[in-house]
Amino acid sequence: MTRWKLTVEYDGGGFVGWQRQDNGPSVQAALEAAVEKFCGEKTVVWGAGRTDAGVHALGQVAHVDIEKKTVARVVRDAVNHHLKPLAIAVLAAEEADKNFHARLSAKGRVYRYRIVNRRARLAVELGRAWHVPYALDAQAMHAAAQVLVGRHDFTTFRASECQAKSPVKTLDELSIAGDGELIVATARARSFLHHQVRNMVGSLVLVGRGKWRKSDMEKALAAKDRRKGGPTAPPEGLYLVEVVYD
Amino acid sequence: MTRWKLTVEYDGGGFVGWQRQDNGPSVQAALEAAVEKFCGEKTVVWGAGRTDAGVHALGQVAHVDIEKKTVARVVRDAVNHHLKPLAIAVLAAEEADKNFHARLSAKGRVYRYRIVNRRARLAVELGRAWHVPYALDAQAMHAAAQVLVGRHDFTTFRASECQAKSPVKTLDELSIAGDGELIVATARARSFLHHQVRNMVGSLVLVGRGKWRKSDMEKALAAKDRRKGGPTAPPEGLYLVEVVYD
Repeated sequence: MTRWKLTVEYDGGGFVGWQRQDNGPSVQAALEAAVEKFCGEKTVVWGAGRTDAGVHALGQVAHVDIEKKTVARVVRDAVNHHLKPLAIAVLAAEEADKNFHARLSAKGRVYRYRIVNRRARLAVELGRAWHVPYALDAQAMHAAAQVLVGRHDFTTFRASECQAKSPVKTLDELSIAGDGELIVATARARSFLHHQVRNMVGSLVLVGRGKWRKSDMEKALAAKDRRKGGPTAPPEGLYLVEVVYD
Repeated sequence: MTRWKLTVEYDGGGFVGWQRQDNGPSVQAALEAAVEKFCGEKTVVWGAGRTDAGVHALGQVAHVDIEKKTVARVVRDAVNHHLKPLAIAVLAAEEADKNFHARLSAKGRVYRYRIVNRRARLAVELGRAWHVPYALDAQAMHAAAQVLVGRHDFTTFRASECQAKSPVKTLDELSIAGDGELIVATARARSFLHHQVRNMVGSLVLVGRGKWRKSDMEKALAAKDRRKGGPTAPPEGLYLVEVVYD
């Protein structure tokens, strides 16, 4: 038996999310089906982050145990072959230690959130970014984002269905950069609460529109009340970019 | 009657191309239907470039004559509203001179061709780039591309069904830049032959793989024979980026 670490990219648009569910196609089930076609074994593919429906990944990490003796290149190419024509790709397969666990061994996650800020609706970026049609001030958003960096009780930015034991997390980075009509938020932490990135971005857009000031962000964080936070940004702008291990 | 200049973005994936055809949905027909829903008039929307099936545009330009008295902002927003949920967007509407013609007044076109150069298949870039799984040398491609810049008989890079009167064109720019796994070609000319950009890119990929040298590109151009050129690169990597007017 070999434990394989897989780095996986996907367009979340056609899936109910990473996790296997009864109500539609999941990335996890698609990978498990491709692995079974390759080696004939029923496996569980464990992911580092349970991305929601519509959320994308450029560097999701998963692990799977396979009895068949094989090499990394073959795992990558064969699973990719059997994933066709789905919008999921195994970027890399590596032999991992028996103790490696994609979720439990992870020391950090990096998410990116993409906003296209223009009047006209999206065409090429449809399903790949959040369309915000009113003018946003990216510098004001970046300044307000710094309020959230550090160790805080993030209850205000936590989905009601979040299963984490504690709402206290340490946010290592939340930076906002504008480049023409594209505004990109980068969030980095050991782990995030459910919907945390999307809820933080939803509040930052209120700042960008001029509806909130930096002080409103401070008040929202201090309130520890989801009802004091901004709306949840839609899933199609969110990308799991990297999972960090020792 | 007012002539409107429209700047249009689209994901070509779901269309038979720009031009109205019997065999499926075209960008032109979709725009004409949206204009009719807006003003109740049957119009013809004339485009600057007849992009093929699957080819995208970030800055296609078109013109249309409308009797209804209105303003630019309303044209843009109303046509966009009626284009939903198609992957077509009017980025800008401007009142144009009666003599303005999107195709005939154009003084230049800029195309971009995107290649993702990696072993793993595409997921997020599926339908938006050409997947080339063997290693490409972008610098060698750029050097060979310079053979094609200037005024030449481009018969070698011309589709058999091309309707242009002459195969002689002046290519003002053909540059290749690599950035990680992404390789982008930029082509600029007053006008192009049918499939010219895709046929040039197909030959440049032979150079990038090491199958052709720069001298083979010179021979291919001099042969004035489509059979001496490389394969036609697929449509999904091609973007009409800009149409230039005086």
